[in-house]
Amino acid sequence: MWNQQEIIFPPVERGFHLITGDVIDALPEIRNMQVGLLNLLLMHTSASLTLNENASPSVRRDFRSWFDSAVPERAPYWTHTLKGDDDMPAHIKTSLLGESLTLPVKEGRLALGTWQGIYLCEHRDSGGPRKVMATLWAEVGFGS
Amino acid sequence: MWNQQEIIFPPVERGFHLITGDVIDALPEIRNMQVGLLNLLLMHTSASLTLNENASPSVRRDFRSWFDSAVPERAPYWTHTLKGDDDMPAHIKTSLLGESLTLPVKEGRLALGTWQGIYLCEHRDSGGPRKVMATLWAEVGFGS
Amino acid sequence: MWNQQEIIFPPVERGFHLITGDVIDALPEIRNMQVGLLNLLLMHTSASLTLNENASPSVRRDFRSWFDSAVPERAPYWTHTLKGDDDMPAHIKTSLLGESLTLPVKEGRLALGTWQGIYLCEHRDSGGPRKVMATLWAEVGFGS
Repeated sequence: MWNQQEIIFPPVERGFHLITGDVIDALPEIRNMQVGLLNLLLMHTSASLTLNENASPSVRRDFRSWFDSAVPERAPYWTHTLKGDDDMPAHIKTSLLGESLTLPVKEGRLALGTWQGIYLCEHRDSGGPRKVMATLWAEVGFGS
Repeated sequence: MWNQQEIIFPPVERGFHLITGDVIDALPEIRNMQVGLLNLLLMHTSASLTLNENASPSVRRDFRSWFDSAVPERAPYWTHTLKGDDDMPAHIKTSLLGESLTLPVKEGRLALGTWQGIYLCEHRDSGGPRKVMATLWAEVGFGS
Repeated sequence: MWNQQEIIFPPVERGFHLITGDVIDALPEIRNMQVGLLNLLLMHTSASLTLNENASPSVRRDFRSWFDSAVPERAPYWTHTLKGDDDMPAHIKTSLLGESLTLPVKEGRLALGTWQGIYLCEHRDSGGPRKVMATLWAEVGFGS
């Protein structure tokens, strides 16, 4: 069984944002699936998706600090500068983290580790809404 | 429906190269697919695949600048040095970006964002031809 | 045909460890598969999976050197420090490399490049056992 739909996330500030609950709420079909996979593609080039710690806001704050430090704005080697100081670093951060996740579904649930959550990583100061294409293919038969 | 084939890319110089059109041309089967997923695996350890901005050559040039700066040649900590100065940095860059992409297919097309393109990231000065294993699984029924 | 199971890896020291053989041994079902995909998700937030060079221990040693240098312990910007000096760097390294791989299966084998191996990347000094969820979906018919 295939299911494919877009999920729109409203604008968020630059940083790392936990969206596991939003993803699950947007995909109630998962509850009926015995075994399968969920592919998420963030359809942008200055924001990304990753899995990481789902409990401490300080982890997400430190993610921003490290990435801002490792991929600096106004570095002498940037030549693509017309779209703002945060644009080219946002492209690099996007590819370091990746725009896509493929996650297992097991017995009606996303089979993540206890401490794993899905992060929407917004690398621009005014990134606007972000669109995710969610593609689910699975064997139905669990639950009701 | 499964489809699996190798795509060979001729040698390119070190840097980031847009290959979206080549991938689509090599996989005409996509046009008949209603919904599905395409997995691409670059079968090497010193080149990678990523998604990023598909319009400005300056973005791809700045990718090279950042990666060359972040993963320097002749750093004091390299011990794997027999295969050339660009070899060990190429291995690190490969894993930072990843060798693999899993992308959604929707109504006969790769469902990428407007600005997203597939980059072949060549991290060696003389990397030679590069091989990608393309695996497509999808529901046929769209188009003719 | 779907197959889903957990694979447990015993504790290893901080660093990069080749596990291709362990993964294949845990999944004898691959031998009967004509074409398919294997998704591996490491269910933790301080260890990761990547593909890289499968021959030289010096490559894996240099991976550790670069990652320890690029994501330093006791950096002034860390605020999430209660769980040890290696904790927050481990979270960053995990997302740089990713927790998940989706790999092609072809004629009864994982279709990796000649030099590609699967690395278990342990970013903590005492990470404990690590669990991987392996999800296989494929067309049976090869072999026996």
